Amino acid sequence: MNYKNFPMVPRVVFGRGSFNQLSEIISPKRLNTKAPFIYLIDDVFKNDAWLTSRVALSYDDRIIFVSSEEEPKTTQVDDLVEDIILSFKERPSGIIGIGGGTILDLAKAVSLMLTNEGGAKDYQGWDLIKNPGIYHVGIPTISGTGAEVSRTTVLTGPTRKLGINSDFTPFDQVILDSELIKDVPTDQWFYTGMDCYIHCVESLTGTYLNTFSQTYGNMALELCKEVFLEHNLTEVESQEKLMMASWHGGMSIAYSQVGVAHAMSYGLAYLLGIKHGIGNCIVFDHLEEFYPEGVKLFKKMKKIHNITLPKGICADLSDKDLDIMINTAMGLEPLWENAIGKNWKKTITKEKLKSLYQKM
Amino acid sequence: MNYKNFPMVPRVVFGRGSFNQLSEIISPKRLNTKAPFIYLIDDVFKNDAWLTSRVALSYDDRIIFVSSEEEPKTTQVDDLVEDIILSFKERPSGIIGIGGGTILDLAKAVSLMLTNEGGAKDYQGWDLIKNPGIYHVGIPTISGTGAEVSRTTVLTGPTRKLGINSDFTPFDQVILDSELIKDVPTDQWFYTGMDCYIHCVESLTGTYLNTFSQTYGNMALELCKEVFLEHNLTEVESQEKLMMASWHGGMSIAYSQVGVAHAMSYGLAYLLGIKHGIGNCIVFDHLEEFYPEGVKLFKKMKKIHNITLPKGICADLSDKDLDIMINTAMGLEPLWENAIGKNWKKTITKEKLKSLYQKM
Repeated sequence: MNYKNFPMVPRVVFGRGSFNQLSEIISPKRLNTKAPFIYLIDDVFKNDAWLTSRVALSYDDRIIFVSSEEEPKTTQVDDLVEDIILSFKERPSGIIGIGGGTILDLAKAVSLMLTNEGGAKDYQGWDLIKNPGIYHVGIPTISGTGAEVSRTTVLTGPTRKLGINSDFTPFDQVILDSELIKDVPTDQWFYTGMDCYIHCVESLTGTYLNTFSQTYGNMALELCKEVFLEHNLTEVESQEKLMMASWHGGMSIAYSQVGVAHAMSYGLAYLLGIKHGIGNCIVFDHLEEFYPEGVKLFKKMKKIHNITLPKGICADLSDKDLDIMINTAMGLEPLWENAIGKNWKKTITKEKLKSLYQKM
Repeated sequence: MNYKNFPMVPRVVFGRGSFNQLSEIISPKRLNTKAPFIYLIDDVFKNDAWLTSRVALSYDDRIIFVSSEEEPKTTQVDDLVEDIILSFKERPSGIIGIGGGTILDLAKAVSLMLTNEGGAKDYQGWDLIKNPGIYHVGIPTISGTGAEVSRTTVLTGPTRKLGINSDFTPFDQVILDSELIKDVPTDQWFYTGMDCYIHCVESLTGTYLNTFSQTYGNMALELCKEVFLEHNLTEVESQEKLMMASWHGGMSIAYSQVGVAHAMSYGLAYLLGIKHGIGNCIVFDHLEEFYPEGVKLFKKMKKIHNITLPKGICADLSDKDLDIMINTAMGLEPLWENAIGKNWKKTITKEKLKSLYQKM
């Protein structure tokens, strides 16, 4: 029996307005004046002086605005890394990701690929990274994915959507400033929050669960219920609690795994480019047979917040397309094993997944 | 407004039997064959082959058995450090503490004092440590104090009982193996578990609390209630849950503080040498006016587990002795400010504390 020696984020600040401390926190990490800090920032903040005016650029420091319209890709990581290598004489002092799961995952991957040879696609999988990455900082501006605390960075590559899972992946520093999530549009707030809710349900009902993960999962689930089902929180409380739900939800995966919704959502993302949050919601809505209580509560939350999910997205797909999605989903063996058990292949057949996808 | 950049334990293993992985985990940290690993182990394990046979000694590695009968002292830390410096040509590769709060705090302090000049008493306080300590590993064999995760090591010095609080204090590695706490005597199990329960109550009702600390505190409190109030857990579940309660309880102090029970218990420890766990219980039992709900539940747990606390321990104390205890307790200003608020000095007078101590 061998238990994972789990890497935790070694430094975390939590507090309303703590984003103002960024410069003070990273300054001691500057290697020299030619080794810049590179800020990867969600381009929704491009003309937002409220945020960008607080990013203090010195020497060769640079902001790169990145769109989070699409899921992060291995080629996008490679392009960013090449751009950084060609633009500066020295390796950066640090990579700072400011955004949601997409931007945070890009920041983690860029940090790793600056110190590991080859392309990002070569490292999709478990523990393939050889060298520690560049010092990297995560600052979430939307909450739910758990990317700020996880040991993975999930990328869509040429042949699959799969994470770079390694002990070097987690951020060296995280800043949790709930004020940064105040302007998230309701739909996006709901989809990303539900990512947390769904992976808690998957983790807590899974066969991999141990007490460590269970305690984090329970806390995250309770916080999600407070945020999405109750009506007695102030806006600030709601933002702070969702931020902590995401944090604990990410930790709940430490000794656990996600499940059916994530596996099938990866299929939707790979073939149709459907983003992770909404993809999870579209799938989870049809998973009563696997997660009866969880789906019931999900439908209740959907109703409270007036969320309408897209329908019929798989209606016109060819068998070939469906096969691609099914193969992507079924390739994620640990997720199925966690959800169903060691004998998952007896019940999870191609026909079964086809019939599920066709409902979506 | 400035928020603490909180250091988290960067590596943690959780699992029944994970103690067997110790050697594999620390081996890569060996600096050279002359730089030993020093194991500080609670001397209750002295003739316990079940535990000690699994500590693999190589080269100059050494086990030092330490009694936890008394609270850890600054002089004890200095003696251990001197002994280690005189015994080995090189600085150790690592310090591994295997025991309860006393041993874990000693391991943290020895690690720090091997790389910082002077005596341990010089560093009692906040952020006085200049240099990172030696690589240090914490392996709890009793649960509740949160010492495995905290940024302090609480020591009794020549003039006061006070922690060495610093960013360098937390362990570099923690191993949470619930099997190691299976043989803790009931009284000790209760007192140490109540340390967790009491600091959760103090943290959750305090004025310093923020949402980060609140979520950890809630999680720990719920786990304490399960362990000490309910009757439907298996032994293993109960051990695992208490271990996680201690972990989360320690984290709940990150942006918070303990309160009245801890402040007054420090007085009992300083003058009478009363150990932390039982000291907290003795004090908390008389704090209905500060923590009405918390104390009610505490009394219920005490009854369920048939715990009888010592009485009349302050009955024969002189006014001079009472003054020493009162001054120790009142010196812990942040604890009172957290418990009562900024104007705590209006209600917390020497007379007030005297009347409370005289009940104990």
